[in-house]
Amino acid sequence: MAEPADLTVNARWVIPVEPAHTVLERHSVVIRGGNIVAIAPTAEASRQYRSTETVSLDTHALMPGFVNAHTHAAMTLFRGLADDLPLMDWLQHHIWPAEGKWVGEEFVRAGSELAAAEMIKSGTTCFNDMYFFADVTARAAEAAGLRAVVGLIVLDFPSAWAQNADEYLHKCIRLHDEWRHSPNIRSAFAPHAPYTVSDGPLEKISTYAEELGLPVHMHVHETAHEVDESMARYGMRPLERLARLGLLGPRFIAVHMTQMLPDEITAIAQQNASIVHCPASNLKLASGFCPVQKLMDAGANVALGTDGAASNNNLDMLKEMQLAALLAKGVHGTAT
Amino acid sequence: MAEPADLTVNARWVIPVEPAHTVLERHSVVIRGGNIVAIAPTAEASRQYRSTETVSLDTHALMPGFVNAHTHAAMTLFRGLADDLPLMDWLQHHIWPAEGKWVGEEFVRAGSELAAAEMIKSGTTCFNDMYFFADVTARAAEAAGLRAVVGLIVLDFPSAWAQNADEYLHKCIRLHDEWRHSPNIRSAFAPHAPYTVSDGPLEKISTYAEELGLPVHMHVHETAHEVDESMARYGMRPLERLARLGLLGPRFIAVHMTQMLPDEITAIAQQNASIVHCPASNLKLASGFCPVQKLMDAGANVALGTDGAASNNNLDMLKEMQLAALLAKGVHGTAT
Repeated sequence: MAEPADLTVNARWVIPVEPAHTVLERHSVVIRGGNIVAIAPTAEASRQYRSTETVSLDTHALMPGFVNAHTHAAMTLFRGLADDLPLMDWLQHHIWPAEGKWVGEEFVRAGSELAAAEMIKSGTTCFNDMYFFADVTARAAEAAGLRAVVGLIVLDFPSAWAQNADEYLHKCIRLHDEWRHSPNIRSAFAPHAPYTVSDGPLEKISTYAEELGLPVHMHVHETAHEVDESMARYGMRPLERLARLGLLGPRFIAVHMTQMLPDEITAIAQQNASIVHCPASNLKLASGFCPVQKLMDAGANVALGTDGAASNNNLDMLKEMQLAALLAKGVHGTAT
Repeated sequence: MAEPADLTVNARWVIPVEPAHTVLERHSVVIRGGNIVAIAPTAEASRQYRSTETVSLDTHALMPGFVNAHTHAAMTLFRGLADDLPLMDWLQHHIWPAEGKWVGEEFVRAGSELAAAEMIKSGTTCFNDMYFFADVTARAAEAAGLRAVVGLIVLDFPSAWAQNADEYLHKCIRLHDEWRHSPNIRSAFAPHAPYTVSDGPLEKISTYAEELGLPVHMHVHETAHEVDESMARYGMRPLERLARLGLLGPRFIAVHMTQMLPDEITAIAQQNASIVHCPASNLKLASGFCPVQKLMDAGANVALGTDGAASNNNLDMLKEMQLAALLAKGVHGTAT
């Protein structure tokens, strides 16, 4: 006798996460109570399950949603602002002043809703975000049915969100606490970058992250300029400084990483830290090339992100995948 | 009194070739006898001309068609064949054997027609091609209403099109002669590459091109391997060899050029030769990076091409422009 189910989706092709590199033809995904209960050939699924609703996708490939591992969702409202500039000029003379002028709850709500629509349209179902008013982005993601990790941003300097590092940290803890039972929203500490957060707050983040079991999501080694500045100010490269502050480890998500010495590639892999590669952003801001193949050869976990729409100018993971694949061939000098 | 015209196209925006960097709002393009007779504000054009047909494009930007400066149109039928391989492996073990097996008039006709449709769909109206059975591609382009420069291919080795360099050259001259009065089709000599054409045929091409006033369209300095092989075989780099054979000059269209010394950049610019940059193909085959900004700084003429669909995998000039713009920032290290 057929078992009941809520929804059966019949597709021309089904691409599962596991087993990897598998394309199933004319299969169905059967859902009950919000969970997948079966993935089976359509003929078999229709015998075995009697579903309340059936959707047939005869020309589609059905696959899991994409995870965009680095976004600033609300910055969709800054798309095309100050194109064609290097990172520090872009940040200091255009983005930061614009944020000072415009960013507030309403801006973040509208920008996050627009980003949610754009991500859903291009197949993304989960994103790892970093921005002010993370609670507003969390609500927008939840309302759109997306999963999100919202970054609890920390900076040395004031914004409409907080006045100083302590206030940022205080808001982080409170926000994490408010959302800790949400099924679809997680939070992570998001100290902006080595050049915008000093040692004190970073040490606190290291301690809190450990206590609360939260990831730490941070722009690291984005440009040669960042590395030079760190050498001048701290006498060491940013990654070494972060390691000394206790941040390098499995919780650490280092975004960009275009400037890497062989020892740093080894360290990242040994510490089980993750790298988020943002090829369009790195090209657009002329930041450099992330040595993705070398990181993968070393066993490091490499994820892919679009960055914000202001530095991309889109949130399309398929485009990002194609660019990442092409660029890696050129950068590593191998076509395979 | 209003003058007669055949067609008036009203557009939200009109982007003319000249003056450069200009976007005209709510303008009309007026056509009579196949020529543009006016580009004027829509209100003015409607007073001044009485047109047989009027097309209104209220949400469009009307601009000249793109020129795709390097294609192998018929190779759309090899799209996705042997992805992710370096050039010589791709050519010797996959493309050349496939061409030996499949390429003939019917293949070139179908492939060129498909390419024509794909190019029209993405806004290309003129392409510079290189392939066997160039007469078949010429007919397909003419039938589709496209302008084309068909490459009269020359190789040392046999194909379904010709048995040896002399036969290729003989067919070149005949084909050029057949098409020389076509309004939309031009021809160019297209010796395949320095590593596939020996000195004898290249000297003849140099002479014939001068006599007939034809361009010479050739893959040059595509990979480091090509340069190394030339050093071993001829004791000089390909560009120097081609210069000695009399090919370097305003007629010369050098495609790819990823391997360039500072002197070679200067020489190309001084000789008024043209470079065709094919960023997607260079990345896909891991050939290297063309120093586009340095070439432009030296005053060289740089054009853009998609290459064939087998090494891209599309013929979309907008995608190619975006990739070229992003890649140049990364390669030259400047975001502007």
